[in-house]
Amino acid sequence: MPVLVMKFGGTSVADLSKIANAAAKVQREVDRGYDVIVIVSAMSGKTNELVKWVGETSPLYDAREYDAVVSSGENVTAGLMALRLQEMGVPARSWQGWQVPIQTTSAHGSARFIDIPRANIDQKFAEGMKVAVVAGFQGVSPECRITTLGRGGSDTTAVAFAAAFDAVRCDIYTDVDGVYTTDPRIVKKARKLDKIAFEEMLELASLGAKVLQTRSVELAMRYKVRLRVLSSFEECDETSGTLVCDEEEIMESKAVAGVAYSRDEAKVTLFTIEDRPGIAAAIFGPLADAGVNVDMIVQNISEKDYDDAHPGAVTDMTFSCPIDQVPRARKAMEDAKAAGLINYDDLIIDDDVAKISVVGIGMRSHAGVAAKMFEALSAERINIKVITTSEIKISVLIDRKYMELAVQALHDAFGLDKA
Amino acid sequence: MPVLVMKFGGTSVADLSKIANAAAKVQREVDRGYDVIVIVSAMSGKTNELVKWVGETSPLYDAREYDAVVSSGENVTAGLMALRLQEMGVPARSWQGWQVPIQTTSAHGSARFIDIPRANIDQKFAEGMKVAVVAGFQGVSPECRITTLGRGGSDTTAVAFAAAFDAVRCDIYTDVDGVYTTDPRIVKKARKLDKIAFEEMLELASLGAKVLQTRSVELAMRYKVRLRVLSSFEECDETSGTLVCDEEEIMESKAVAGVAYSRDEAKVTLFTIEDRPGIAAAIFGPLADAGVNVDMIVQNISEKDYDDAHPGAVTDMTFSCPIDQVPRARKAMEDAKAAGLINYDDLIIDDDVAKISVVGIGMRSHAGVAAKMFEALSAERINIKVITTSEIKISVLIDRKYMELAVQALHDAFGLDKA
Repeated sequence: MPVLVMKFGGTSVADLSKIANAAAKVQREVDRGYDVIVIVSAMSGKTNELVKWVGETSPLYDAREYDAVVSSGENVTAGLMALRLQEMGVPARSWQGWQVPIQTTSAHGSARFIDIPRANIDQKFAEGMKVAVVAGFQGVSPECRITTLGRGGSDTTAVAFAAAFDAVRCDIYTDVDGVYTTDPRIVKKARKLDKIAFEEMLELASLGAKVLQTRSVELAMRYKVRLRVLSSFEECDETSGTLVCDEEEIMESKAVAGVAYSRDEAKVTLFTIEDRPGIAAAIFGPLADAGVNVDMIVQNISEKDYDDAHPGAVTDMTFSCPIDQVPRARKAMEDAKAAGLINYDDLIIDDDVAKISVVGIGMRSHAGVAAKMFEALSAERINIKVITTSEIKISVLIDRKYMELAVQALHDAFGLDKA
Repeated sequence: MPVLVMKFGGTSVADLSKIANAAAKVQREVDRGYDVIVIVSAMSGKTNELVKWVGETSPLYDAREYDAVVSSGENVTAGLMALRLQEMGVPARSWQGWQVPIQTTSAHGSARFIDIPRANIDQKFAEGMKVAVVAGFQGVSPECRITTLGRGGSDTTAVAFAAAFDAVRCDIYTDVDGVYTTDPRIVKKARKLDKIAFEEMLELASLGAKVLQTRSVELAMRYKVRLRVLSSFEECDETSGTLVCDEEEIMESKAVAGVAYSRDEAKVTLFTIEDRPGIAAAIFGPLADAGVNVDMIVQNISEKDYDDAHPGAVTDMTFSCPIDQVPRARKAMEDAKAAGLINYDDLIIDDDVAKISVVGIGMRSHAGVAAKMFEALSAERINIKVITTSEIKISVLIDRKYMELAVQALHDAFGLDKA
């Protein structure tokens, strides 16, 4: 039998009636002739409650015990889902991570898969079981301790099972009905995409279109697992939702697939630093050590190219990071300066910025995407503060007050409302 | 190091502050030089919630999935307890049933222990771990499925670990401070017993002094595990609570250790049945098949010894059972009569009775206990409806309205308020 993997997130199994609703979707796929592997999250809110208890019991907790506690929510949902399916006449059983066994590294709280042996589940399929309900987000370490994969880990579990079982597809049921050209709350004409390439999804996911966990998309790309995002709360057929797939499956791609934004950005500029080999490492090393996720980096020629106080060549360095990491970034820079590792005249923080990105694999073959983007922003008199580009993405920092205007202007400029 | 087993029930780990309170008691025993095995229940209310969800999802549930779901509460408590102990500087880790592994039969929902291998936990003790926190109530079947032991199973887990690890004692922390000569709500002068023999505890437990699960006492008696019942919510020392032990440890025993009662009894009488070999089996076979827990049985000579309608010898048969099983008992008897298996003139139910029992291993050597009991009841003009006796117990059925009076009278008559 062909195997289909279906994953239901916390809001899709939030209570018994939602579990029943999800089970009905599973039954439909069994009726279509699939052997189904269902990956379930904990009922929404349950994992947060457990995390809170752990934090209150032990602020600097032992991650092994954290994992033992927080993994329990998924076990409950897996059992209830199996029971519901049985009640509907569908042969099903639940599997906890150690029963499969889902073998992971010992990196508790953020474990990585080592292997997902098929034998136990395959044997049950051979005996007539139609659905294996697997607790997501968890595994077991070589030391026989329970591990968890970190937040959003159930998406990753689903993709890993789809890869291990050569599934025809991995359907991720969630509370949205697919991936959109941009946030429909900002742009009314935002359009659901039928298909999107892995690379595009990766850029969109990390930029704020929080539909799929980045790591699960990376894994799907590596193993060429066809991923589908669709809604738990709507009637679905084989063409519902958005298919995240290899770009070869996408016949003809527009230059731009979507417009992403991030509201919580800050821009940090170090003025008048030495322009010498190793200066970038001297700045970004301490930032990395302090856990600052630096995103965009721009280095430009300082006006004070030479002067008496600074006999060598000097420059300015600008980077962006999440706004809540600004205090850490400032402290890391001040400490580095105090330790004599770097020198700068001034450190200026602009925490009133937003990042806008256009993403599309079509950029590789379409010329003039950047020019069109800058023109569209210019037409709205929006000043660009920082620009970075990659092969399939162009990002700019702008004043936050123009964020929505910019997203709308770019969505229009690239004709994203039209199929 | 000597090993001590400590068990905390649901009310003793009901929230984080209660878990911290329990952990403090564990730390004290570690400070005294013990390697400690802690058995924990689920936070009170959690298991009931899970049981409700299972029942609502699937009324005739698959017991394997039931076990997978309802065992999760103990896993949460075990992890939180280990974290709390670590936070206090005590080397501790949690163990789920399959990690030990606690090997049980496949009788899901009421599994029996097969083996509790010591190797894994002993190795950790050898490496310096001081406390193994084990999730109670659960195990793993030969098929690698999670099993549960049934209600009160955590007491049984604790005793089984005490036996497997040759523990010096098994301390059961609960919400009462020990075993009393009778219910203190009825008799103000009820006195906490320092020691009680296993056999006495078994009779008292099954009669309504719901402190310890019967099965755990049976297991303790078989393996001579010294059991101590004490309060989670009071300061305790080595002599607190009540020690349940072999009768050889009890230097001098009174004739009667305690007075038990059961309010929820009913008396069923079948009038004018044939007095022939096999008649008892014909009555009590169908009752057993119907799941009626028959307790006391009395057969007496009928007044209608011979008459025309009943040419053979006839008698009456009286038995008692829990009041909520009366409808089943009545149906079983009526069905048996309709099927021609038995015959009777009348079936009379008296559901306004209570059972009072005096229990004590000293009865074996003290004469006149029954006479003293009947005199005490007679002095209060309480009529006795049924009497049964065993080696260490005498039970009577009386009108329910006299129940409290009878308990008080017997407590006084046997001097139980005096040490």
